[in-house]
Amino acid sequence: MKIGMIGGGGVGQTLGAALIALGHQVVIGIRTPSAEELAKARPQGATLTDWSARTGGAVADFATAARGAEVVFNVTPGQHSLAALRAVGADALAGKVLVDVANPLDFSAGMPPFLDSAFSGATSLGEQIQAEFPAAKVVKAFNTVAAAVMVTPSLIPGAHELFLSGNDAGAKAAVQGLARDLGWTGFVDLGDIVGARAQEAVLPVWVRLWMTGGSPLVTLKVVRA
Amino acid sequence: MKIGMIGGGGVGQTLGAALIALGHQVVIGIRTPSAEELAKARPQGATLTDWSARTGGAVADFATAARGAEVVFNVTPGQHSLAALRAVGADALAGKVLVDVANPLDFSAGMPPFLDSAFSGATSLGEQIQAEFPAAKVVKAFNTVAAAVMVTPSLIPGAHELFLSGNDAGAKAAVQGLARDLGWTGFVDLGDIVGARAQEAVLPVWVRLWMTGGSPLVTLKVVRA
Repeated sequence: MKIGMIGGGGVGQTLGAALIALGHQVVIGIRTPSAEELAKARPQGATLTDWSARTGGAVADFATAARGAEVVFNVTPGQHSLAALRAVGADALAGKVLVDVANPLDFSAGMPPFLDSAFSGATSLGEQIQAEFPAAKVVKAFNTVAAAVMVTPSLIPGAHELFLSGNDAGAKAAVQGLARDLGWTGFVDLGDIVGARAQEAVLPVWVRLWMTGGSPLVTLKVVRA
Repeated sequence: MKIGMIGGGGVGQTLGAALIALGHQVVIGIRTPSAEELAKARPQGATLTDWSARTGGAVADFATAARGAEVVFNVTPGQHSLAALRAVGADALAGKVLVDVANPLDFSAGMPPFLDSAFSGATSLGEQIQAEFPAAKVVKAFNTVAAAVMVTPSLIPGAHELFLSGNDAGAKAAVQGLARDLGWTGFVDLGDIVGARAQEAVLPVWVRLWMTGGSPLVTLKVVRA
């Protein structure tokens, strides 16, 4: 499958490398794919020159990465996701499955980050992306675990499921298919994209569990009566 | 143990009845314990006249309920908790274990409720209560599950733990003791009262799991590597 990764930081590099290892073609899109930008270490990641050499993945500008793809991942910092997706362009996203992995975390007060009030309460980043790009099929997924766990869920032993939400059943099935290939065996479907409120609200919980428990290899399992 | 329950709705009635059944003395405090108020059905609960007749528990004004207690529960609606606790009075709360069960949910847009931005982000209701009543030993607990599960955790089978946080280790141990008596066998200690941010952030997740799964008998279990 042809996959576009909007954002070149550690999450995009990790997801991209794992999807390439599964046989997919991945293009990471960044705003300005200049030689200088490719040689810069990215947040929580390597340089994209090194990433390409290691994985065989390509790097292009935002619109090119999305235009050639069947599935597009938003792996930008959540507070900047709408601006990045505007730079990608609605045309390049139309009809595509758009997997929203981003979290609208505000680090302005240092650690711990908190949910930006512009994207929480009676709204969420996932909903705002879907509202602004109505022709894209937004699926919120992968945002509740560390990047290493996204691609190797067995790093946390025992039963735990991937949360996802979105308005389009086919798009959710496609994302579940990719997740199964990565090793996920169970899913918690939170319904339409309003479920993104719940998925993004996991972040303050997850960050606190990390801080008090000493490891980001922690997640939440749903237990029902 | 002498327990004061600030708030007479369904959560206070349920916790109060269960604690009385364990042998504790419980006084529910409401703002105006008039004959008229006692005869009114409370939110998600019975009339307090009926509750008293059924359980043997007493009803008094806010300050009286707290003043005679060793442990005080805040079971008011979260948006109104600070006003209610001001009516209780700092003197009546000084030195007491104050179990904050409340969630600052905003129902102004109907269902689903969302976290009031005045109490979320880089703050929480639990922290604000501790800041305003520094002589109370605030422990955030019981706020992440339905009232029925608070007092009968086995309604949700399998391993799941009670989240709690607070600045005072002795107060947390006292709350764990009461929780053990109610049937809780495991705990997730989220550290100091800043952990209330995480516990309150569980609510949007829990509400969505309830709405999409059809039952409030659902909770989140922490799974670590």
